[in-house]
Amino acid sequence: MIPSETTVAIVGSGLIGRAWAITFARAGCKVRLFDPDPAVPEQAVAFVGSVADDLAANDLLHGSTPAETLSRLSCHAAIEDALDGAAWVQECGPEVIAVKRETFARLDAIAAPETILASSSSALLPSAISEGLTGRSRCLVAHPINPPYLVPAVELVPAPWTAAEVMARGEALLRAIGQTPLVMAREIDGFIMNRLQGALLEEAFRLVAGGYASPEDVDAGIAEGLALRWSFMGPFETIDLNAPGGVADYVSRYQGLYSGLFEGMKQRVDWAGPVLETVLKSRRDRLPEERLAERQLWRDRRLMALSAHKKRADEDVGR
Amino acid sequence: MIPSETTVAIVGSGLIGRAWAITFARAGCKVRLFDPDPAVPEQAVAFVGSVADDLAANDLLHGSTPAETLSRLSCHAAIEDALDGAAWVQECGPEVIAVKRETFARLDAIAAPETILASSSSALLPSAISEGLTGRSRCLVAHPINPPYLVPAVELVPAPWTAAEVMARGEALLRAIGQTPLVMAREIDGFIMNRLQGALLEEAFRLVAGGYASPEDVDAGIAEGLALRWSFMGPFETIDLNAPGGVADYVSRYQGLYSGLFEGMKQRVDWAGPVLETVLKSRRDRLPEERLAERQLWRDRRLMALSAHKKRADEDVGR
Repeated sequence: MIPSETTVAIVGSGLIGRAWAITFARAGCKVRLFDPDPAVPEQAVAFVGSVADDLAANDLLHGSTPAETLSRLSCHAAIEDALDGAAWVQECGPEVIAVKRETFARLDAIAAPETILASSSSALLPSAISEGLTGRSRCLVAHPINPPYLVPAVELVPAPWTAAEVMARGEALLRAIGQTPLVMAREIDGFIMNRLQGALLEEAFRLVAGGYASPEDVDAGIAEGLALRWSFMGPFETIDLNAPGGVADYVSRYQGLYSGLFEGMKQRVDWAGPVLETVLKSRRDRLPEERLAERQLWRDRRLMALSAHKKRADEDVGR
Repeated sequence: MIPSETTVAIVGSGLIGRAWAITFARAGCKVRLFDPDPAVPEQAVAFVGSVADDLAANDLLHGSTPAETLSRLSCHAAIEDALDGAAWVQECGPEVIAVKRETFARLDAIAAPETILASSSSALLPSAISEGLTGRSRCLVAHPINPPYLVPAVELVPAPWTAAEVMARGEALLRAIGQTPLVMAREIDGFIMNRLQGALLEEAFRLVAGGYASPEDVDAGIAEGLALRWSFMGPFETIDLNAPGGVADYVSRYQGLYSGLFEGMKQRVDWAGPVLETVLKSRRDRLPEERLAERQLWRDRRLMALSAHKKRADEDVGR
């Protein structure tokens, strides 16, 4: 799938949909925006216009100009129009199973037979979304971390009946637009990233609930500690480089330590219990609630700067 | 504790000790190196000389020149000489409880009464190391991620009898030399960072063992996904910014999802079982064992570049 010859339909053009629009359009795809609320696609285009210069300044438009990126977007009031000629549909509706099923039934009825139907769902399994559809073999989940134009990883998750050829085309398209597809062999709740995040968060809440550490010390232990290496290697390469003989040596030296820790990790912590007051106080002392939106913009600017840094470091130091 | 007026003794001058020597010396401390093998301190000084230019080029010597940093190091064949005038002892011996206890008994007998005795131990509790010593209230663990001159986080862990004043002086010294101390309220196996890493690794091994994902997809999900935000915020700030109403809103929206995942996480995965072959094959396909050392140098150069980037982004975008 060559991006400049590929048309993508965004079905649901809110927060996630508009971010996908940037991600596809900067790489050269034609992007057709639809939303049940006909005002939303125009708002999405306005949003793209508002961030395009910043993205260009951080070398995040993949060589496209802001004007070229915007010129590839079109708004459509009818879903049939949005799907016209689309090789890929990126569905970005609410995370409600009944809504997803209804949307996918409609997409399956309208879309040309070779069109791939991808859901951005983070919490619903592709089997639950596409079960019973005539075209269920062309359905999958393509779950981004928002916003995908700043975070490359996208989980590609098949239902048991998703065709291997569909997964292969999805992987090729995502790579062609510069994302990093994680191609799952089969579905599981939480996919890859929310499972890893959930395991880490559970232990973070436990340390605070047990009175061992403050929320800010946990954050510092990640942001000034573990995540520095993880941000360019991931956990397996990290441990592979942390024992003289590599990962097998690491497991033989340290599994005993981790196995001992695991005994204390089997009991769930109620995140909404007393620990939440501690976490909430720590966060609101540092950031009043009315400044959350401003801080989200800060986060996105830091992500832009980090992305530009990683690109430079890939070239200067190697990847 | 003003670094330029503080003398630090490194007891055990191998891999960890020499990295601590850089960390203290670049900030202005006098650093006195000792090792049971009298050849090792000289090798440590040679190592510092070999990396100092690179560190200076990445603005990682805290304004000191390579020559100034080196001039603050001295080698001592007798432990009594190394401890002479030291306000802080950083012990970096083998992770064997009998050896640690013997070393700490000796340090407690020799060091001036106000000297703080800190162990770099990652896996032994400070209570086990200092139990029974006359000066046990001045003993603690100061556990770095190696190398501390590239990774700021240091866990400060008290035994039940460690004096609050000792913890406060330790925190002040580490902050003064530019590290980020995580001040634990009480000890627990694995401290903060190895517990968080262990929880994440357990789930990483589970995903691979269950045939859901490949090791390289797990690594990409962290390095091109979750760890981008974590590398400048940590997990609590990340979720605080991931729901419109902040962390309490996040917990109320998503705890159900994570709670459902947790049920499948209660059974340990044997990291040395069949999954290890999959991980090992993935790693060795990407990096032959004979190139591990070379790749460790790459990792350290990437950490240097990342550290320089974070300093710039703290200034340009804000922290």
